[in-house]
Amino acid sequence: MSRCILEAKKDNQEVKIRTVKRIELIKKIIARARKKGKAIGFVPTMGYLHEGHLSLVRIAKRKSNFVVVSIFVNPIQFGPHEDYNCYPRDLKKDMRLLKKENVDLIFNPSVKEMYPNGYKTYVEVSDLSNILCGSLRPGHFRGVITVVLKLLNIVKPDIAIFGRKDFQQAVIIEKMVKDLNLDVKIITIPTVRESDGLAMSSRNVFLNKSERKKATILYQALKWARRAYYKNLISNAEYVIKKMKAMIEKKGGRVDYVAIVDKDELKPVKKLKKGNLIALAVFFGKTRLIDNIVL
Amino acid sequence: MSRCILEAKKDNQEVKIRTVKRIELIKKIIARARKKGKAIGFVPTMGYLHEGHLSLVRIAKRKSNFVVVSIFVNPIQFGPHEDYNCYPRDLKKDMRLLKKENVDLIFNPSVKEMYPNGYKTYVEVSDLSNILCGSLRPGHFRGVITVVLKLLNIVKPDIAIFGRKDFQQAVIIEKMVKDLNLDVKIITIPTVRESDGLAMSSRNVFLNKSERKKATILYQALKWARRAYYKNLISNAEYVIKKMKAMIEKKGGRVDYVAIVDKDELKPVKKLKKGNLIALAVFFGKTRLIDNIVL
Repeated sequence: MSRCILEAKKDNQEVKIRTVKRIELIKKIIARARKKGKAIGFVPTMGYLHEGHLSLVRIAKRKSNFVVVSIFVNPIQFGPHEDYNCYPRDLKKDMRLLKKENVDLIFNPSVKEMYPNGYKTYVEVSDLSNILCGSLRPGHFRGVITVVLKLLNIVKPDIAIFGRKDFQQAVIIEKMVKDLNLDVKIITIPTVRESDGLAMSSRNVFLNKSERKKATILYQALKWARRAYYKNLISNAEYVIKKMKAMIEKKGGRVDYVAIVDKDELKPVKKLKKGNLIALAVFFGKTRLIDNIVL
Repeated sequence: MSRCILEAKKDNQEVKIRTVKRIELIKKIIARARKKGKAIGFVPTMGYLHEGHLSLVRIAKRKSNFVVVSIFVNPIQFGPHEDYNCYPRDLKKDMRLLKKENVDLIFNPSVKEMYPNGYKTYVEVSDLSNILCGSLRPGHFRGVITVVLKLLNIVKPDIAIFGRKDFQQAVIIEKMVKDLNLDVKIITIPTVRESDGLAMSSRNVFLNKSERKKATILYQALKWARRAYYKNLISNAEYVIKKMKAMIEKKGGRVDYVAIVDKDELKPVKKLKKGNLIALAVFFGKTRLIDNIVL
């Protein structure tokens, strides 16, 4: 276990928002709400909430009348050398933020509640899971899809809201929901950005001052590609990717991938087209950031 | 594609029982029944029904008040050299049998309805799926679990009934239901046998007269093991397995496996104990039969 940069803050201030840890209990509470005719909106998160998460919550509030937010750092989507133990956590702050948004219920189960001893069942979406973010993170999307399916089975929401920063994740979840005949409607929401364009992420907190500044290059590179396509009519994917990589590397980013793919099958394209996804994953120091735009 | 022994019979007699092919439609019909306060009972089958299936249906009738039976030969649970194309089918006869049992609804989707183009999502229950029947049939239980999860999501039954002839299948389904937090209650029912002890199976129809007679050795060998344990206090698993294999091979059966395992984890035991599962799979000619008893 690597040492974590962040230490949990002490915080004894009481926050009054209903927070449930047990699966059986939250099922009962939500069943009661459903019986009263409530439409259930669900926002699954790993906590350490930022404006991106809160924008998902606001959509859920607008489109349903009983909003459940889960806060669960899902161990099975982290590789053995990834940052599961160090993933930032601050439940009290999250509770305060969600209270302010008038969320009805927080689901905050333990790892043991979600994966009791002898847990054995996993879901995979083939083809879509071993590319882009899945290629350097084998098993990552298996972990994501499995926990999302479990959460959807527990909450049984009418709608569930996901952010498009994790574009590949959203595509895979939509595919799983369709393939497994679930009734939930998946809604995806545009990425929320800092004023200098950096995509909001719980992991941004790991960046030091210099890395934080350099990381703005990611969105700049994406915007450059969009301009190159729409203004300068450059459509050679290989060329655009090469240029973007060079821009990012010049700022000290270590590129995991820069890819231009069709946005349904996530397959690489040779010529850029309207609707294509330009996606990237880049390390600054030890912190891996992702971002994307759709042309 | 190998040539099939059985040819579909012509049968123009009309049978009046509601049979639905479309997922969206059956969801609506069942939602309506649920709204009326009905408890939904579900029996998933691959059709070509025999008394074993009908005993499942009768339990469903007794324990719920809206019974759905699915008839779907699930291609993804068959290996490339297995008998998917030749698996026996007789929908008209099945409909007549289910009509007699007062089943409310038959779900009989096409392969394309269940697995449309671009289908990609699969469920696995690790450890339990690559042993016993899974060891000679890689991917078999992945196919079973995936279709069962889909069917449970479509029908959303309160109870679902499975036969214990497919003991491993039942164990895996129960595990999946628990792991994925589904609300359905799984009920398993003892194997129904012919008067000479052969476990009922849709595949028995493939046995020729001589194979059919020899196949009775399977249940005899299982009963011998039970007697050996309870009467003669033999508890050496290796010895019991060797003896059973010899009995079966003497009758011309080609043994896939004979195994003695604990009935929850399906792990081999060295010493027999009350509650152990004795399970076997044996070929007679080209027909693979399975059977088991619990001590």
